[in-house]
Amino acid sequence: MEYRIEKDTMGQVQVPANVYWGAQTQRSIENFKIAQDINKMPREIVRAFAYLKKAAALTNLDAGVLSQEKCDLIGRACDEILDGKLDDQFPLVVWQTGSGTQSNMNVNEVVAYRAHVLQGGQLTDEKKALHPNDDVNKSQSSNDTFPTAMHIAAYKILIEVTIPGIEKLRDTLDAKAKEFKNVVKIGRTHFMDATPLTVGQEFSGYVSQLTHGLRAIKNTLAHLSELALGGTAVGTGINTPPNYSENVAKHIADLTGLPFVTAENKFEALAAHDAIVEAHGALKTVAASLMKIGNDVRMLSSGPRAGIGEIFIPDNEPGSSIMPGKVNPTQCEAMTMVAAQVFGNDVAINIGGAMGHFELNVFKPVMIYNFLHSARLIGDVCVSFNDKCAVGIRPIEENIRKHVNNSLMLVTALNTKIGYYKAAEIAQTAHREGSTLKETAVKLGYLTEAEFDEWVKPEDMVGSIDV
Amino acid sequence: MEYRIEKDTMGQVQVPANVYWGAQTQRSIENFKIAQDINKMPREIVRAFAYLKKAAALTNLDAGVLSQEKCDLIGRACDEILDGKLDDQFPLVVWQTGSGTQSNMNVNEVVAYRAHVLQGGQLTDEKKALHPNDDVNKSQSSNDTFPTAMHIAAYKILIEVTIPGIEKLRDTLDAKAKEFKNVVKIGRTHFMDATPLTVGQEFSGYVSQLTHGLRAIKNTLAHLSELALGGTAVGTGINTPPNYSENVAKHIADLTGLPFVTAENKFEALAAHDAIVEAHGALKTVAASLMKIGNDVRMLSSGPRAGIGEIFIPDNEPGSSIMPGKVNPTQCEAMTMVAAQVFGNDVAINIGGAMGHFELNVFKPVMIYNFLHSARLIGDVCVSFNDKCAVGIRPIEENIRKHVNNSLMLVTALNTKIGYYKAAEIAQTAHREGSTLKETAVKLGYLTEAEFDEWVKPEDMVGSIDV
Amino acid sequence: MEYRIEKDTMGQVQVPANVYWGAQTQRSIENFKIAQDINKMPREIVRAFAYLKKAAALTNLDAGVLSQEKCDLIGRACDEILDGKLDDQFPLVVWQTGSGTQSNMNVNEVVAYRAHVLQGGQLTDEKKALHPNDDVNKSQSSNDTFPTAMHIAAYKILIEVTIPGIEKLRDTLDAKAKEFKNVVKIGRTHFMDATPLTVGQEFSGYVSQLTHGLRAIKNTLAHLSELALGGTAVGTGINTPPNYSENVAKHIADLTGLPFVTAENKFEALAAHDAIVEAHGALKTVAASLMKIGNDVRMLSSGPRAGIGEIFIPDNEPGSSIMPGKVNPTQCEAMTMVAAQVFGNDVAINIGGAMGHFELNVFKPVMIYNFLHSARLIGDVCVSFNDKCAVGIRPIEENIRKHVNNSLMLVTALNTKIGYYKAAEIAQTAHREGSTLKETAVKLGYLTEAEFDEWVKPEDMVGSIDV
Amino acid sequence: MEYRIEKDTMGQVQVPANVYWGAQTQRSIENFKIAQDINKMPREIVRAFAYLKKAAALTNLDAGVLSQEKCDLIGRACDEILDGKLDDQFPLVVWQTGSGTQSNMNVNEVVAYRAHVLQGGQLTDEKKALHPNDDVNKSQSSNDTFPTAMHIAAYKILIEVTIPGIEKLRDTLDAKAKEFKNVVKIGRTHFMDATPLTVGQEFSGYVSQLTHGLRAIKNTLAHLSELALGGTAVGTGINTPPNYSENVAKHIADLTGLPFVTAENKFEALAAHDAIVEAHGALKTVAASLMKIGNDVRMLSSGPRAGIGEIFIPDNEPGSSIMPGKVNPTQCEAMTMVAAQVFGNDVAINIGGAMGHFELNVFKPVMIYNFLHSARLIGDVCVSFNDKCAVGIRPIEENIRKHVNNSLMLVTALNTKIGYYKAAEIAQTAHREGSTLKETAVKLGYLTEAEFDEWVKPEDMVGSIDV
Repeated sequence: MEYRIEKDTMGQVQVPANVYWGAQTQRSIENFKIAQDINKMPREIVRAFAYLKKAAALTNLDAGVLSQEKCDLIGRACDEILDGKLDDQFPLVVWQTGSGTQSNMNVNEVVAYRAHVLQGGQLTDEKKALHPNDDVNKSQSSNDTFPTAMHIAAYKILIEVTIPGIEKLRDTLDAKAKEFKNVVKIGRTHFMDATPLTVGQEFSGYVSQLTHGLRAIKNTLAHLSELALGGTAVGTGINTPPNYSENVAKHIADLTGLPFVTAENKFEALAAHDAIVEAHGALKTVAASLMKIGNDVRMLSSGPRAGIGEIFIPDNEPGSSIMPGKVNPTQCEAMTMVAAQVFGNDVAINIGGAMGHFELNVFKPVMIYNFLHSARLIGDVCVSFNDKCAVGIRPIEENIRKHVNNSLMLVTALNTKIGYYKAAEIAQTAHREGSTLKETAVKLGYLTEAEFDEWVKPEDMVGSIDV
Repeated sequence: MEYRIEKDTMGQVQVPANVYWGAQTQRSIENFKIAQDINKMPREIVRAFAYLKKAAALTNLDAGVLSQEKCDLIGRACDEILDGKLDDQFPLVVWQTGSGTQSNMNVNEVVAYRAHVLQGGQLTDEKKALHPNDDVNKSQSSNDTFPTAMHIAAYKILIEVTIPGIEKLRDTLDAKAKEFKNVVKIGRTHFMDATPLTVGQEFSGYVSQLTHGLRAIKNTLAHLSELALGGTAVGTGINTPPNYSENVAKHIADLTGLPFVTAENKFEALAAHDAIVEAHGALKTVAASLMKIGNDVRMLSSGPRAGIGEIFIPDNEPGSSIMPGKVNPTQCEAMTMVAAQVFGNDVAINIGGAMGHFELNVFKPVMIYNFLHSARLIGDVCVSFNDKCAVGIRPIEENIRKHVNNSLMLVTALNTKIGYYKAAEIAQTAHREGSTLKETAVKLGYLTEAEFDEWVKPEDMVGSIDV
Repeated sequence: MEYRIEKDTMGQVQVPANVYWGAQTQRSIENFKIAQDINKMPREIVRAFAYLKKAAALTNLDAGVLSQEKCDLIGRACDEILDGKLDDQFPLVVWQTGSGTQSNMNVNEVVAYRAHVLQGGQLTDEKKALHPNDDVNKSQSSNDTFPTAMHIAAYKILIEVTIPGIEKLRDTLDAKAKEFKNVVKIGRTHFMDATPLTVGQEFSGYVSQLTHGLRAIKNTLAHLSELALGGTAVGTGINTPPNYSENVAKHIADLTGLPFVTAENKFEALAAHDAIVEAHGALKTVAASLMKIGNDVRMLSSGPRAGIGEIFIPDNEPGSSIMPGKVNPTQCEAMTMVAAQVFGNDVAINIGGAMGHFELNVFKPVMIYNFLHSARLIGDVCVSFNDKCAVGIRPIEENIRKHVNNSLMLVTALNTKIGYYKAAEIAQTAHREGSTLKETAVKLGYLTEAEFDEWVKPEDMVGSIDV
Repeated sequence: MEYRIEKDTMGQVQVPANVYWGAQTQRSIENFKIAQDINKMPREIVRAFAYLKKAAALTNLDAGVLSQEKCDLIGRACDEILDGKLDDQFPLVVWQTGSGTQSNMNVNEVVAYRAHVLQGGQLTDEKKALHPNDDVNKSQSSNDTFPTAMHIAAYKILIEVTIPGIEKLRDTLDAKAKEFKNVVKIGRTHFMDATPLTVGQEFSGYVSQLTHGLRAIKNTLAHLSELALGGTAVGTGINTPPNYSENVAKHIADLTGLPFVTAENKFEALAAHDAIVEAHGALKTVAASLMKIGNDVRMLSSGPRAGIGEIFIPDNEPGSSIMPGKVNPTQCEAMTMVAAQVFGNDVAINIGGAMGHFELNVFKPVMIYNFLHSARLIGDVCVSFNDKCAVGIRPIEENIRKHVNNSLMLVTALNTKIGYYKAAEIAQTAHREGSTLKETAVKLGYLTEAEFDEWVKPEDMVGSIDV
């Protein structure tokens, strides 16, 4: 490979001749050979940096500390990053300095050097059109840019991926709940037969979980909308022009179309990332919902002949490499595995969030890596489960009917007629003798056949069926 | 010990002669010998049950399905529970049936039998004034009462213990932030010397964390305010009179003075406890804040001679059984241990919350046990830390001044004057040579002594100091 | 209440007149009002301290730095602690100083003052027969005693409670595996029908899990057997007589009957508790096993009429306060709740274990609290599940036979005869048409009825049935 | 893109014309659009599959159920996978079916079709030289191959990456411990000044932690060495030739050079992955050690002027984009972030491990994904921290000397001379008055200057310094 020489405050570094990054990026590649093939700094963070670098340039221009020409150059390079044209220029990993300084410098270097080339320069020119620190990073520090990029990336992925994914699944389940509102089925508590409800009611519970989960996520957006930018090194805003914080937040809001504001308190914004901890608390809540839904669907569809078998789910692929004709609830499995991952990610985030010291939390990359992972997984798996499973769910009415009609727990309808103790005696006797409730009730002399038929109707035991 | 005989639907049971509980409670004692000495069902749950049993009785009275006399009796027994007079009548443990059925029955039995005694009966009377199932549990199921008790207990402890505790600490730290607003100190990022800020600013970050944490908790109250009661066995509300759900929620709201409402969807309310998962997500966020604050305070107060030593904290006890005169940051230690516990509790809650099946989640006791544990720990430790540590914090100005004046990072003020690279050269040279910034800057010829004095003033580097 | 005055190095303290504790214990009560009703320092730790104080006295006697009389007095008081006679003298909570200093001093004070009374003195005597620090704590520090108590308590509970509990359940399941070795049943993978196995084989998997889990626990005992005692303040052993470490470990081994040795490295032994982290890693492994077993048992016993219903489990109590005659898998629920708790406890321990600084880890109490909690829960719940559930399990052969004979996955036996693709076609066709495998196989012309009967025999598909 | 048509038991699928995979792989790509850019099935699993497919072919050859020619073909294709030549043929993600069936089929298809091309065929030939199911997957099921691949991959990465990485760091720290064995420094407990020790002793604690951690990992290898292969669909070994399990394990042991054996119990081996849970329990223990070491190193190296500053660590890169000349403990940050991740991964593994049902655990991919992630992160970060930080550590003797000589805790040496209480008075007085211990001791009249000089020598307070 051919190289060129780049410099930083610590001296010279050999850099591959044709890349846009510079000395500090190269140092980081060499200093952090940790899972380099699998844990690149998430693309969402790189994009978020492009928004903020452009916004910072515009704000510096407004404040009179950056020339129009330099501002334009920064903007052009950032736009290329946002268009995905420079994706291969960001080789650094998550496991670097805990402030993300090197990824900030990676962006500073790529913007500066790409801009230099855009305006006709060559990468080998010693002096470039823009200086990574003095121009691209002007009025900024890694300590306020990286957390700003965290919030931009986190907010965007929730809005663009996570929330729409959950909503899509919620809406499908809601349609199913309405479609199946008249299908009376046996209820199950403790995995045991219980009183009846409708399939629609059962599904309405899932809908309610996801609706509450969406509210929970949205409740956390306010904290995420607060941006650290303007705090610079330790939160005091050293080396920023007047009103910089407010103005740069406005530019970021304009560029992203999202309601970002400057953080109320910059000292928190650098030293702690409770907004990430809090927002991921909502994501793990949704993970709990998805685990429940995924488990229920796989269990309800179990069989085909020795399971519960009350719903049909689409068969998308051969299920077994050895058992011919087998079909499995694979979307449920992907969804519940995602839930397990999100619970794990939550712990990594909690620990990272708890361990800031003094003016800086230096677990930033691990926190946002896990956050973005969860947010994408939830969004993607909801869409996958929706498209490949939920939309195709339909009740298997024959099995449903058989289960509800056999149920001993229909006896519950008699509590208010003959009391809990006699009702229990009927159920226990029928269970022991393998007989029906009606036979047993009459035999025990607690009610007549006519009374039984009038009082024990599954369809009368399900309350309001509008969901 | 003397015994009497009690019965349930499975037969006779020997019960200690003088206790108010009955057959089902006794069975549970014998069936679940699991950590009986340390894991009693939390008292808060027992009290919450007393509110709901009383409210159910009032609602049943209104609906014409319970007599005034029985309603009054239930109310009197419940009041005794609320007054703490019957605390020793609830011997069951957390590790029982996952629906909490046995604790519900424990309450039903104690209310029924205590009421019987209150109106003149004897525990040995075969027929009691109230029947545990048919009267005290009327229009209820364990499946809707236990989750209702969970929400009542969770909401109450947040309002009465957790939030006031956090607020108390927040307010003290806020007063400290204002008191120390003019004390300029060195900042630390990556645990390394950085640009200055004030002690007030540093503390304002803690205040902002707790303020955000309080908001996060309050955001979760809406979901917690939804009560399952009225769903009975599987969410359909079987065996309840008309409008029971809404009415019983109103009675509970009246009795507790808290804004409880009936749950939008009873199927979710029985089968999932996402509200607990979500609300604990806020508690773990506060735990992250407390870990940060506790760590900072212990590190800032470290020494007395070989540490950072920038703040004084009260010495409440001898710190060492072997090192005479030692004083330790013990309140910080209690607080950070609490944070570790809350993070652990969060995982237990997540798993419990994820593992509901069909119409019922049967991890209810473990979920609420961990929730109440965290809520109490956070509330209590905030008060303890506040009273025994935070109120007594004061800066050690001599050390603070020495640290800030020696700092090489004051060089940052020169970035906008001479550029990042020359500033770096000054800092690196001063560090290598053990000299001051001023000497080095002048020696390197980058600026004059007068310029240095004008440009490098710690007190000018801290931005707005109003906190 | 009446009080007496006690003193420590910080001055005078009012102590309840009749308690054996002194000034430092009293200070801790007042300084740490955190969950005082529910989180006392575990009794196992107090007992472990009694062993070590007695062992330290004997070692000091041997070394000639403690008189025979004082040694005897210490021993007598310690024996009373071990006999449980002084349980109410240890009022401190987990949430205290992170080194457990105050619990060490609580023991020092109680031993000193109880000994004083034992030899005829009065609690109000200003000078006592023993000095808490200079005699009872001689050659010790909290920093080495508390971790020693942690290891003694952890090792003992594993040997006395956890391992026997797991073994008991393992042995019962093993007997069941042998008893059911000929019962051929349908297998289930992905919760879907699969090829057959025997009930005995299925249970043998549980046995194997627990056997491996026991090995995992035992693998961690070596690290737990290492005692910190002799490291004193920072691991250097300051203020100890020659060979103290080895000798005191021998005395502890003698007194407890367990193979304790002095830690290879005292600096680790004070500053980190990786042995606790590691050993709890084995406990969480067992928790995973128990969750699997508990879930399987509840699902296999589900029904009675609309579930899987392949095994019977004992009905120990009425299952529902509203549904008469309902029986639930309550022991499974307790066991799976315990598993959730252990997973949560694991996280608290990990965080505590990770956060030692320099010469001391100050998350000792939270670590051992969670460890002992898990160890007891696992031991107790295994016994409870064993006695109240596992011993009564028996197959419901009628359902088992029906399920296996209907199964479409018997077709797998044909793979080696007609290939995977034709076998799949048979299964899919039979599923679609609701027909039997044999009918379909013959109809499709892939084999004769006689071939089917010869090749497709569930009992020939289960391999070796010896378990 | 150009396509060809491939078939499976569910019908035809369009596959990119030039890839080696077939219908089932393609279905999975389309069915699981979940984090496809970031969560490919780990390469280690693909390689492990190549070993096992080759071993299965050899075993089938031995058993006379596969021709020599087919066996050779399978071997050649597998060798290409092991050489990394077919890396781009494995496009599937972690979030697929929970048994990993589709990744097993991906391997089956690639081996079959690549082999077909290797012996001169074309991808468009309808009939290929090998059939993915009937030949490549012969005597196998996804249910036994995927867990076998999990154990091969896990064992190999521990041996090749994790253990060597930890050993490298351990050995460097051990050399440092020996090098610094005479450097007396102040100890710190509770982050507060304590009695002295040597730098060598302090580092020996880290060495001991890692040595114990290595033992903990090695203790878990026995369970990992057990292979599921031969259990096929549900553990019974259906469709395998005689002695297949033992023979295939021998072939795998030969091919990998690792001591694999067939699992004692195949039912556990498919239905549970406690070996992964257990082994990761050792990894999280090491993570706790690394967090401790990383924190200590960053704190000990803090400063340069307002921190603890007792050790020097190499400066590898500019530390700040705004503060010129700043150097940060970045390797410590990477290492502690890794620890946080491993703790999170542990929870994901625990949940996955706990949630197997009946004859199969379907959280296999998420479990092994997290395991391999942790194993690689720990191995890599130990090497990175070693090479870029640990090897360059040296004590800053000037600061160390100053701290130890000023320390008030040297007073502890007087306990055995004048008692704990008088010693405490000296320390407290010196602290209050800002005087030295010696001055104060003499002034208080407790000892003479000569006695002080004789009794209070830091170098005599550190015990044995051989580490």
